[in-house]
Amino acid sequence: MNLGTDRARSRFAAAPVARLATAGEDGRPHLVPVTFATDGDLIVTAVDHKPKRGTDLARLRHIRAEPRVCLLADHYEERWEALWWARADGTARILGAEEHEAREAALDLLAGKYPRYRTRRPDGPVIAVDVTRWTGWEWGDVAPG
Amino acid sequence: MNLGTDRARSRFAAAPVARLATAGEDGRPHLVPVTFATDGDLIVTAVDHKPKRGTDLARLRHIRAEPRVCLLADHYEERWEALWWARADGTARILGAEEHEAREAALDLLAGKYPRYRTRRPDGPVIAVDVTRWTGWEWGDVAPG
Repeated sequence: MNLGTDRARSRFAAAPVARLATAGEDGRPHLVPVTFATDGDLIVTAVDHKPKRGTDLARLRHIRAEPRVCLLADHYEERWEALWWARADGTARILGAEEHEAREAALDLLAGKYPRYRTRRPDGPVIAVDVTRWTGWEWGDVAPG
Repeated sequence: MNLGTDRARSRFAAAPVARLATAGEDGRPHLVPVTFATDGDLIVTAVDHKPKRGTDLARLRHIRAEPRVCLLADHYEERWEALWWARADGTARILGAEEHEAREAALDLLAGKYPRYRTRRPDGPVIAVDVTRWTGWEWGDVAPG
């Protein structure tokens, strides 16, 4: 059955990993798993280290051309009655070195969730997603699209 | 570090769940988790039960308009050295009642992987994805895009 906005948001927030879907330049969807933290309707995720090819990661290139993204958190186990997923549709922005304050606030959120980010703070670009729609589902009679 | 084609394919195949990204009519990416089975470069996934609104699930509507899809399987744990992901880019087809033989073969693959599908065979549409590219990553120095 469908989760309401509040339950979808809280299920998503508590998940350790999500998947970020971006639209490629040619319209083909692209997926990558991301660690993330949330603050209300804001999702932040960081590129852990400076990629070798500067900031030319596919996800960053895609967001610059098409900021509309989708993120999904889900739970799987063999007992299917325990299945659930939560989805965020939103608009992404890239926080570079010039957005110092917003970037530091995002990194604080990430460090609050992941101990690994406390000992090694990500030094790559930060992606901030303003979520416009939270949806979700848990086991019920009919799975939605 | 990057996984080669063969390792990405085998890691993906063994995962219990993947996420299917489709492109919406307006180009916005859309995500849903899916159970799936593979046979070489073929991925199949079924809609468990006939949805209430006929076959008007978002994922089916999207595939009819834009068959290029992306699927992702990943593994997360607190010990980040164990992280990995595997991604499949491909082209999707919908197997309806008229593609009886291909649909039954797909359902056999799914029933071979999931005990739940043996007791209750999915009766909804089946999506078949012909994978054109397998990529993947496991913990290393630099995360790719």
